[in-house]
Amino acid sequence: MNKPGKDIKITEVCLRDGSHSVAHQFTEKQVRDVTRALDDAGMHYIEVSHGDGLGGSTIQYGRSLVDEMKLIEAAVEEAKQSKIAVLLLPGIGTVHELKEASKRGAKLVRVATHVTEADVSAQHIDMARELGMEALGFLMMAHSAPVEKLVEQAKLMESYGAQAVYVTDSAGALLPHEVRERVRALRENLDIEVGFHGHNNLSVAVANTLAAIEEGATRIDGAVRCLGAGAGNTQTEVLLAVMDRMGYDVGIDLYKMMDLAEDVVGPIIPGSQEIRKGSLALGYAGVYSSFLLHAERAGKRFGIDPRDILIELGEMKVVGGQEDMIIDVAANLSKKQAVEA
Amino acid sequence: MNKPGKDIKITEVCLRDGSHSVAHQFTEKQVRDVTRALDDAGMHYIEVSHGDGLGGSTIQYGRSLVDEMKLIEAAVEEAKQSKIAVLLLPGIGTVHELKEASKRGAKLVRVATHVTEADVSAQHIDMARELGMEALGFLMMAHSAPVEKLVEQAKLMESYGAQAVYVTDSAGALLPHEVRERVRALRENLDIEVGFHGHNNLSVAVANTLAAIEEGATRIDGAVRCLGAGAGNTQTEVLLAVMDRMGYDVGIDLYKMMDLAEDVVGPIIPGSQEIRKGSLALGYAGVYSSFLLHAERAGKRFGIDPRDILIELGEMKVVGGQEDMIIDVAANLSKKQAVEA
Repeated sequence: MNKPGKDIKITEVCLRDGSHSVAHQFTEKQVRDVTRALDDAGMHYIEVSHGDGLGGSTIQYGRSLVDEMKLIEAAVEEAKQSKIAVLLLPGIGTVHELKEASKRGAKLVRVATHVTEADVSAQHIDMARELGMEALGFLMMAHSAPVEKLVEQAKLMESYGAQAVYVTDSAGALLPHEVRERVRALRENLDIEVGFHGHNNLSVAVANTLAAIEEGATRIDGAVRCLGAGAGNTQTEVLLAVMDRMGYDVGIDLYKMMDLAEDVVGPIIPGSQEIRKGSLALGYAGVYSSFLLHAERAGKRFGIDPRDILIELGEMKVVGGQEDMIIDVAANLSKKQAVEA
Repeated sequence: MNKPGKDIKITEVCLRDGSHSVAHQFTEKQVRDVTRALDDAGMHYIEVSHGDGLGGSTIQYGRSLVDEMKLIEAAVEEAKQSKIAVLLLPGIGTVHELKEASKRGAKLVRVATHVTEADVSAQHIDMARELGMEALGFLMMAHSAPVEKLVEQAKLMESYGAQAVYVTDSAGALLPHEVRERVRALRENLDIEVGFHGHNNLSVAVANTLAAIEEGATRIDGAVRCLGAGAGNTQTEVLLAVMDRMGYDVGIDLYKMMDLAEDVVGPIIPGSQEIRKGSLALGYAGVYSSFLLHAERAGKRFGIDPRDILIELGEMKVVGGQEDMIIDVAANLSKKQAVEA
């Protein structure tokens, strides 16, 4: 009997999402070592970029230690079978960086937009296809829009030429039944592949990913040792062990993945990737990690629990860049609580 | 509308299962501080015992720093609303320790046996009821027996007077659909409550617990910050956040739980409770953590990957105390691999 799973492609994101965890300080040697080990285990795709995607190395998003084009080039050199992928957030990165990455051997790009802003991805998806790259769409903060909106935006990406669209749970806020509903809706309404990218803030990243796979998602993201933003991503080597137990065969060597998690990625992790107070609050409230520090500061200033600020922001469906709204929210909450007291 | 969840009782096990993580070195102050904070948050039950249950403080299982009766007494003193629970593994603990614990104010005991050995629990369940304690049954390594066997053994515990029986996933080896199947079967065949105790070796402890709750389990275990054996238990404060998001109200203060996780339990954790190579291998193979070190030693001696030994042991359904079989398994695997090579 043929095992299922051959159609599932895994993208390892620890060298991109993990860039946040190491404050964008990946060395060329680290990227080479991790890529070589992942390649040897048979990983399908390895994403290498600044945490905020191509062009993210700025004062605003954090300067990379090593130019990402150099890291992409190094990864391409090390990878015998894995393909190197990049992330592009239109507005942070441009078609210029995309061309550069392609020239250096990147074969796939995920073009990422906020879940309601797919229209800004048209030009970049188009260019990627022209360059002969695989072009996939990434709908970030997928929890924050109704399912119908998600479908509408995914169809836009499909119309631009995207070959897959991801449900991207940027804040680690989705629960398994919510992932199921979203992947199912995309599968029913798109002719292209559907993917899932999870974060573990609510400790359900592996379960969410299983739910996505059961609903037919075939593009799956993980990060070895959860090395990614927030509480980290779906833990790749654990996901692969669970998939193996469930009878899926994706053609990646599980023991080699477990070994490299311990011996190659482990030593890079600066702290630990446990679910702590801050990451739990972010997942619970459903907001980006960039809001946490601001909420804590505003909470102190106005005598408000920062979690109440985060929850209010989550309900307002704020997006990255709206951090200046935090002061207003904290001031209003403070007034409201004074009236109630 | 009344929220569901009022019938669900949470037992916090970090002061018992977490005893393994701190090599049974809990101080009286730690037990008092953790109990006081949990009590203030409204935790229903707090389990306090040696990691291997009452009477576990021995050379074989590891000596406790402080006599567990003293710790139970301290916890009882601190708890204004929470009830103090104890664990008893017949053979390690006896009715003597049970009486002592009851005298010191413990109100509930979980009597734990291997999933196929419920018959050894009769006397202890009976004595607990006689002492006026709540007496619950704990069927450990629940993944290792067919569902029919689990039901048969649970019915035995019910017949002895147990007021609930737990599906106890000691090795963190169960997947959500397997938990669902087991809890459903117990619910269909028992007249008493059903519980679930999970470990996070495969990163699905929270998802497993949700599955159990959806199938009607009302006795739920968790450990703050995953402080427990293996990869740790279902992370209590995360579970409570997820349950809150799903509309359950169990009457425990979520913010206080998040705070005590960071400020009171956090500082006690010796290393980190991430899912590492060893704990993942245990969950994948479905064997007790006591086998890990032995398997690593035998692997080195016979030139075998310790994971192959653990998987073989898992298939043989070994139980605690059978660690001497590891050498035979390793020797046989070594011969087999030599023939195949």
